[in-house]
Amino acid sequence: MSTPPPARHVAILAGGRGTRFWPVGRESVPKQFLALDGDDPRPLLRATYERVQPLCEGGQPWVVAPEALARGVRKMLPRLPPDRLILEPEGKNTAAAVALAALRVYAKDARAVLVVVPADHHVAPEGTYRRALRAMLDRAAQSGAILTLGLRPTYPATGYGYLALGKKTANTPAGAVHAVRRFVEKPSASEARRLVASRGYLWNGGTFAFRPDVLLAAMQRHWRAGLEPLDRAARERFAPAALAKAYRKVPSISVDYAVMEKATNLETLAARLDWDDLGSWDAVLRHARADRDGNVVADGSFAIDAKDCLVRSEDGVPVALVGVEGVTVVRTKDATLVLGRGKGEDVRKVVKALEKARRRDLLR
Amino acid sequence: MSTPPPARHVAILAGGRGTRFWPVGRESVPKQFLALDGDDPRPLLRATYERVQPLCEGGQPWVVAPEALARGVRKMLPRLPPDRLILEPEGKNTAAAVALAALRVYAKDARAVLVVVPADHHVAPEGTYRRALRAMLDRAAQSGAILTLGLRPTYPATGYGYLALGKKTANTPAGAVHAVRRFVEKPSASEARRLVASRGYLWNGGTFAFRPDVLLAAMQRHWRAGLEPLDRAARERFAPAALAKAYRKVPSISVDYAVMEKATNLETLAARLDWDDLGSWDAVLRHARADRDGNVVADGSFAIDAKDCLVRSEDGVPVALVGVEGVTVVRTKDATLVLGRGKGEDVRKVVKALEKARRRDLLR
Repeated sequence: MSTPPPARHVAILAGGRGTRFWPVGRESVPKQFLALDGDDPRPLLRATYERVQPLCEGGQPWVVAPEALARGVRKMLPRLPPDRLILEPEGKNTAAAVALAALRVYAKDARAVLVVVPADHHVAPEGTYRRALRAMLDRAAQSGAILTLGLRPTYPATGYGYLALGKKTANTPAGAVHAVRRFVEKPSASEARRLVASRGYLWNGGTFAFRPDVLLAAMQRHWRAGLEPLDRAARERFAPAALAKAYRKVPSISVDYAVMEKATNLETLAARLDWDDLGSWDAVLRHARADRDGNVVADGSFAIDAKDCLVRSEDGVPVALVGVEGVTVVRTKDATLVLGRGKGEDVRKVVKALEKARRRDLLR
Repeated sequence: MSTPPPARHVAILAGGRGTRFWPVGRESVPKQFLALDGDDPRPLLRATYERVQPLCEGGQPWVVAPEALARGVRKMLPRLPPDRLILEPEGKNTAAAVALAALRVYAKDARAVLVVVPADHHVAPEGTYRRALRAMLDRAAQSGAILTLGLRPTYPATGYGYLALGKKTANTPAGAVHAVRRFVEKPSASEARRLVASRGYLWNGGTFAFRPDVLLAAMQRHWRAGLEPLDRAARERFAPAALAKAYRKVPSISVDYAVMEKATNLETLAARLDWDDLGSWDAVLRHARADRDGNVVADGSFAIDAKDCLVRSEDGVPVALVGVEGVTVVRTKDATLVLGRGKGEDVRKVVKALEKARRRDLLR
């Protein structure tokens, strides 16, 4: 008698922050709650939810988010069953979120296979994306490897992590699978050019498929300080007090640093996808549908002798651009951001300046 | 028995519009109602009033403004006697305003001498300025010439008119007086460089001193179509109906084009003044007190890696500049302007675009 194939689970990591998307991104309105992907009017989390739903066991993904965002997540995803919302007592970066998802799924079904996906990326086309996730899940189930989504670089990005390809380990309907020799964190411009030219590197999509028992074993080995408190909470069936106690002890670290870069059984699926982590306003402009002058200007606003500009007016009040190039303007009721080309990362400096100037009211 | 010297009168022309200072400049809030001169918190009209007052017969200047601005002028200049406010039925450019001022002053005192000054320029220092106006008035009284304020160019401006200097006709305590050979309207950049290098040209300050009878005679000769309707209104003691009727017939033209460029008795006083017509946001930035990065950023706003930027937030809401250069940002409750360096003149294009888009609500 053959056992049925393991059930496929998807966990959406919805714990991101909005720092780089100020002034529309706020503590209470993080990036995944914003519509930032071209003409898609859906908030990124909702688009992600709808994109992965067809893959999910029982038709529903898991969503991992900090308590503080619970209300917003429920409002955005009214059809998400309450028991599929995994609430973290506080935001503690991705290692904790991935561990918690793995523990919860493992408790529900020790044979399951799980893919964790960020809530706030651009990815297209959807069918190709789902085929890739399915292939990653199936390979993880079969081989016991941890699979990461690899993207063929289309330009020498300095804002992404790269994966060095090792030997091919499998062919799937969605692309070849390779061992990962090493991670290269955000490279310099010249190193990025070298990596892209060599064709031996993929972008790391931050999307991991694994058997929970496999991941937890890797965490046990490489991230014991983080896993042990969570393990204790699992033994108490994730009771809120137990989980809160665990989270106070869990280090805040990304799953890449904590586990993936050290794991010896890491593989990557080389997917052919249009992908972007939408890391800043620069990326938003890159993916938006521009007019022939390269401008993305909302209804009611004006671009006069302007080029490659993005205007976003949250309070509906018009913005007039005159004789500027490569400028992003974001207007809200209580702030205006005017950002130069390629300076998206520096929006975090505004957040710091606001903290220093005791204007936390503009960050909430 | 010697006759007393003629009384000195000053008329402030306050009929300007706010088109180039949108979105703070509006039909109801023209440029002269705005504070645009460096750290001076006074609206330009009020600063002009206080600057010329010490020169005036009876301690008070005349103010010429369209009816629509009457309330605003009275509020801004509460000490201006009602009979010193000359209201035009409608705005009809400077020829009509100057003619009306000359007729009103002549009716009051046929021996007077009058200087007409724009309400919306930057000029410093004040003492030097008043000495120059006094010298122009005295020379006009003595010689029967029309005097215009000439400024030594400090850079090859393309936005100003130039005066070609003829022979010297007088020395005054405030500088030499020369005949004006001709007017050069806003020159090209290369012509401007040539004019400035030649040292034979001054900027035309748009400030004219004359005996009203002399000016009216020149208008009778060069601008009869404009003067005759106004003359008829004068004979009816400027009764509102008569003036309204006259204004419907008066051509809308500048006093430079209508009269000054054709007058044969035009002279200029070469004044040593820091002068600017504050013609656009570019000029405002030029005269504002900047920080060491060249930024002029109001309280509560932020400039991060920004250079040579001007921020003005009328609703007190902060503006954050990040990685931009030479950009002017003006935020009001109902609009935001983002303007590139040297593009101040193009703000008028926004006004046109708003008219086309049926957003006249943003211009009122």
